[in-house]
Amino acid sequence: MSIRIGILGYGNLGRGVEYATEACEDMELAAVFTRRNPSSLNIRRKDVPVVSVNDIETWKDKIDVLILCGGSATDLPVQTPQYAKIFNVIDSFDTHARIPEHFAAVDAAAKTGGKVAVISVGWDPGLFSLNRAYASAILPDGKDYTFWGRGVSQGHSDAVRRIEGVKNAKQYTVPVESALDAVRSGKNPSLTTREKHTRECFVVAEEGADKARIEREIVTMPNYFADYDTTVHFIDEKEFNEKHGGLAHGGFVIRSGSTGDKGTHKHVMEFSLKLDSNPEFTASVLVAYARAAYRMAAEGQKGAKTVLDIPLAYLSPKTAEELRASLL
Amino acid sequence: MSIRIGILGYGNLGRGVEYATEACEDMELAAVFTRRNPSSLNIRRKDVPVVSVNDIETWKDKIDVLILCGGSATDLPVQTPQYAKIFNVIDSFDTHARIPEHFAAVDAAAKTGGKVAVISVGWDPGLFSLNRAYASAILPDGKDYTFWGRGVSQGHSDAVRRIEGVKNAKQYTVPVESALDAVRSGKNPSLTTREKHTRECFVVAEEGADKARIEREIVTMPNYFADYDTTVHFIDEKEFNEKHGGLAHGGFVIRSGSTGDKGTHKHVMEFSLKLDSNPEFTASVLVAYARAAYRMAAEGQKGAKTVLDIPLAYLSPKTAEELRASLL
Repeated sequence: MSIRIGILGYGNLGRGVEYATEACEDMELAAVFTRRNPSSLNIRRKDVPVVSVNDIETWKDKIDVLILCGGSATDLPVQTPQYAKIFNVIDSFDTHARIPEHFAAVDAAAKTGGKVAVISVGWDPGLFSLNRAYASAILPDGKDYTFWGRGVSQGHSDAVRRIEGVKNAKQYTVPVESALDAVRSGKNPSLTTREKHTRECFVVAEEGADKARIEREIVTMPNYFADYDTTVHFIDEKEFNEKHGGLAHGGFVIRSGSTGDKGTHKHVMEFSLKLDSNPEFTASVLVAYARAAYRMAAEGQKGAKTVLDIPLAYLSPKTAEELRASLL
Repeated sequence: MSIRIGILGYGNLGRGVEYATEACEDMELAAVFTRRNPSSLNIRRKDVPVVSVNDIETWKDKIDVLILCGGSATDLPVQTPQYAKIFNVIDSFDTHARIPEHFAAVDAAAKTGGKVAVISVGWDPGLFSLNRAYASAILPDGKDYTFWGRGVSQGHSDAVRRIEGVKNAKQYTVPVESALDAVRSGKNPSLTTREKHTRECFVVAEEGADKARIEREIVTMPNYFADYDTTVHFIDEKEFNEKHGGLAHGGFVIRSGSTGDKGTHKHVMEFSLKLDSNPEFTASVLVAYARAAYRMAAEGQKGAKTVLDIPLAYLSPKTAEELRASLL
């Protein structure tokens, strides 16, 4: 029997989940839930019902895992606890500083409902967290480094678009190659924020806008840009649409550490991602963890989990025996 | 209270475990067990007892986890089932093809004894397996590649040393850079054995030995060298001791796959290791999984496990709360 998946929220991430479930033979997309008027939603799969979120409770017994595709700022803090009472759920909550309170709220709700809720799934938090966890446990005498990019930061692009006179904008986070090399050499360098990443903005200005002022407002913006070396390129709309429509991203988690007599032996562990589409890859991670949630629920487990709590065998469609024979 | 570790077998791996337990504040090395005469063993820690393996059963209640540091060919197939009846154990059994039968034998023994036994721990099988597992689950439409090296293969070095006229030898497995680049490009190339790795041998010949014959015997040796491009360098003993004393190793696990409409979006996931000392790093992985075994046993779990069955939070000395707050 297939695992019946529901999607709540049909933006870039929801569309990615639609693709990802299709790539899995043991899954079927049962319904897409939306806060919009369902008839206004043009989903790719014409055989899958689009349902108003107001009717979601009637799907209680027809969905095995609900994948929440909303944003971390306002959607997920409300939605995940709300729906973890009724469904096994997966979310991609990525506000690192607020994970403990989100976990507590979701855990209480999921235990009330007797459901499994996996929070903060994706690549960071997510796969990068897995790598930080085992690397720091294996090399206690060492240091962790996380680099992001080259890739599009939605938050920073939005911040630039809010500046007066900006018609459209895209911001790329770029890891500094010489910093990456220093880390890979095993030297355990101390690196400031400015030394690890640069920021590159492509901006379409409104006609007649003061470009010098826009550039100044970008590079001095606190939290977002002031601590970085930022380059601003003004381009026309045609070039913007041709070259900056994508949502590529990626990054690196590196731990270097030492073992043995006086720590003479150095070791470098590196995990990296190079992604053409951040939302489609993130969706693929969510779907693999939906399989894990389904299995944990079938075993009678309850409550909130993170990627660190789940054996990786649960992600695979193969059985434990098949994995031992073919992959271990 | 500290986790009390026992070591069985004091070769390179056992010495690595001795170092690795010292790097962990929550561990103490309780005893080293040996098949040799204990008084002949010169271990680094003078405060730790060296005990004959014949007396190991009297340590039943004084060891939390016994780390088996023998070889996969003859030691572990006997030792792991034998000691899993009495102790929680960890081994690094790495004969991939025989893992299912080893798992079955160890599982039966550990269940009889009410103990936890984690088999096939290290980096391959081990960390590389973790990466293969999640990468293939996340990108079902893709392909896996594992490369080893540049590093010393003990098995191949031994094979060369068995040739008549060879006094000493070291064999390096070398990944082919252009093959790595083709894989990283996301092209999913089909690669033969010969295209993925080359082999490089440094040989000290006996005086008067026929070097042409030795070279011919190496490069045509079935299973070990015949399917590879192999280079043989004859060097003198001084150079051998100066430059080829180390046990460095490493490798790469790469999965490239695609998502979305007609698979147009490519993604590359890469994990790599660069290790100055293969046995010391492997020992560090064994010790992190010893912590996991201790915790699983404390929860009342029983039987054989592999790295795929264990949540990564169990490896860390931090609590689940600390991990969520600081690392996720």
